Amino acid sequence: MLRLALYQPDIPQNAGTLLRMAACLGVAVEIIEPAGFDVSDRHLRRAGLDYLDHVAITRHRSWAAFCEWRERETIRLVLATTAAALPYTDFAFSDGDCVLMGRESAGVPDHVHAAADARVVVPIRAGLRSLNVAVAAAMILGEAIRQVGPHELTASDRDGTSAP
Amino acid sequence: MLRLALYQPDIPQNAGTLLRMAACLGVAVEIIEPAGFDVSDRHLRRAGLDYLDHVAITRHRSWAAFCEWRERETIRLVLATTAAALPYTDFAFSDGDCVLMGRESAGVPDHVHAAADARVVVPIRAGLRSLNVAVAAAMILGEAIRQVGPHELTASDRDGTSAP
Repeated sequence: MLRLALYQPDIPQNAGTLLRMAACLGVAVEIIEPAGFDVSDRHLRRAGLDYLDHVAITRHRSWAAFCEWRERETIRLVLATTAAALPYTDFAFSDGDCVLMGRESAGVPDHVHAAADARVVVPIRAGLRSLNVAVAAAMILGEAIRQVGPHELTASDRDGTSAP
Repeated sequence: MLRLALYQPDIPQNAGTLLRMAACLGVAVEIIEPAGFDVSDRHLRRAGLDYLDHVAITRHRSWAAFCEWRERETIRLVLATTAAALPYTDFAFSDGDCVLMGRESAGVPDHVHAAADARVVVPIRAGLRSLNVAVAAAMILGEAIRQVGPHELTASDRDGTSAP
């Protein structure tokens, strides 16, 4: 199963879009706190996320706690960053990989950048800042799923030849 | 150059996210009116879309006007719809294709569905409604760019082997 980690998410609308995407695609979500808003189930449910029962969310109380968890589980961390050289379509994803998205406003700090196992970029035109975080995550997870095969989709959705 | 057509867009935030994406990826945008909000340059600029100068937007005053235009230009129309059988990753995109996204709330009417040259789906888990329209467009355009090569990216962004 692929995973999507949100580093200290700061914009509720983007997080909501990403949680809905994760539910639809069968991707687990790791929320690395502190977040810029209330990420409790009760609050997310009140905000109308009615697909909340369909996504596996794990909250990590800090970056350190997240690192302990992912080392224990030996999960490979793939950071999406505008500062990477490797286009995401040239990266070989594996089932179980965790795609890490930074904050919409500021990405991730240097120590997080350094701690990732790999760093990938969505190439964009020169002179433009960045894609919306949900858009970048969608492109990267779409490519990862294309490579490793989807998780828990109905059989009719795929011919199965690329399933792991 | 790839194109993204928005059929009567009804949610300004999604349209804004898609215009930003189109600017970053070098994709032209066709807006098929009527829209549910003011899509004039003046209004979009006032809404903070400062990358507006970096995206080629064409407004079509109706579906009929859009059809006339795309027949004149012989542009292939690829509809994204939850009602399609063909996964978007199994479709062979060509440079110049126009990816058509329906309304967030209601997709497209039957006559638009029928008029498309091809229909593709982003496979999602059974029992869930749909992806956000910007997320679905990002996945499909990401795949199209992977296949046909990016438009107007800086040379260092790509190795060029997949460029058309």
